[in-house]
Amino acid sequence: MPQTPHTERHFTASDTVRDIVIGMSDGLTVPFALAAGLTGAVALTSIIVTAGLAEISAGAIAMGLGGYLAAKSDAEHYASERRREHKEVAEIPEEEMEEVAQVFRGYGLTGEQIAPVVHALRERPKAWVDFMMRFELGLEEPKPERARISALTIAGAYIAGGLIPLAPYIFVSKIHVALLFSVAFTLAALFVFGWIKGRFTTARPLRSALQTALVGSLAAGAAFLIAKLIS
Amino acid sequence: MPQTPHTERHFTASDTVRDIVIGMSDGLTVPFALAAGLTGAVALTSIIVTAGLAEISAGAIAMGLGGYLAAKSDAEHYASERRREHKEVAEIPEEEMEEVAQVFRGYGLTGEQIAPVVHALRERPKAWVDFMMRFELGLEEPKPERARISALTIAGAYIAGGLIPLAPYIFVSKIHVALLFSVAFTLAALFVFGWIKGRFTTARPLRSALQTALVGSLAAGAAFLIAKLIS
Repeated sequence: MPQTPHTERHFTASDTVRDIVIGMSDGLTVPFALAAGLTGAVALTSIIVTAGLAEISAGAIAMGLGGYLAAKSDAEHYASERRREHKEVAEIPEEEMEEVAQVFRGYGLTGEQIAPVVHALRERPKAWVDFMMRFELGLEEPKPERARISALTIAGAYIAGGLIPLAPYIFVSKIHVALLFSVAFTLAALFVFGWIKGRFTTARPLRSALQTALVGSLAAGAAFLIAKLIS
Repeated sequence: MPQTPHTERHFTASDTVRDIVIGMSDGLTVPFALAAGLTGAVALTSIIVTAGLAEISAGAIAMGLGGYLAAKSDAEHYASERRREHKEVAEIPEEEMEEVAQVFRGYGLTGEQIAPVVHALRERPKAWVDFMMRFELGLEEPKPERARISALTIAGAYIAGGLIPLAPYIFVSKIHVALLFSVAFTLAALFVFGWIKGRFTTARPLRSALQTALVGSLAAGAAFLIAKLIS
């Protein structure tokens, strides 16, 4: 059947975009804040580079594996709920029919209006289970290769983001000069990243750009202050 | 109408549990890995405490504000899609009726079975919009106070998690003794946290406990190795 022409206007960010946003938001922000914070507390860029690379590897692994396990657990949750619905549709069809009816009663439909749908689903157990998964439980079937791709995308985006604030400390030995370059590069990167993220997910990319740069600045400022206070 | 007795068995983690899991997963893992990594590279616990507290404050702010902005942007996305659906239901009702029919055709229902539902929704524009939001777009209405609570929950959980691996470095001055305590405390905390998380979200808490401890160990091990290699 033909697509209605206006459907494409509803935008939903793809899973890959979402994973890049997850990894890069934290990758740009936390290593930046850590490096800026340590600049207020230590004298050598080498300690900052060590701490920064340790943080980037830890963060990439923690977020990447975290994303992997979350996607795996979503897939298992979906499979186990689906088995349960299959069982219920076969063993307690009356209750499940009542649940379908309940969904529609929530939209103000009468028993006579609901009955044909309930009976049509009853004759198609597979479609019935699909219906219950989506409409009763609000679950979408996760793609099988999702977990691995998600993990690599998040980790890669974290590393790419984290190297931007750290690079000046690798190449510039004067620590406060390195901080200035790091702040300039990272704010520019946060702004561009926030803009692109905003283009994908909202109607207001400029506001997204400013918000993203602000979060990074606040995190870095707080880290700088706390490190300065302690040392 | 009476709830069907088996509905409660479908478990979905509440938003608060999800926010605690988000904050504490990273809070236990990244500061732990950073502290362990720096233990391989620096001689003084004071640098580790400074770097650790800077990281915890940066991470809590970045994740908390990130959660705040994500929740705000979800709420705006929902409101703007809802306005669009209201407009479409009023201006192009024929196309929207076809979209309702399309949803049901996907479950193998015939035109005669679908017609009563389509016409019932047509008479109730509010219910119709509700239906399109949930069934066409798969969007749930976010609660208005969500963003602020989510931000504070994530940040608090991050700080609580992050202080566990860092505490030994604050109270023990011998750096390798501090590392041993930090590893022991954090692995125990990751195990308990993974177990509780598993009880809430899966049927296999032991596996969740082991996985969570493993992710933390891998992140800390990688950070330790990288810091050792650099220094």
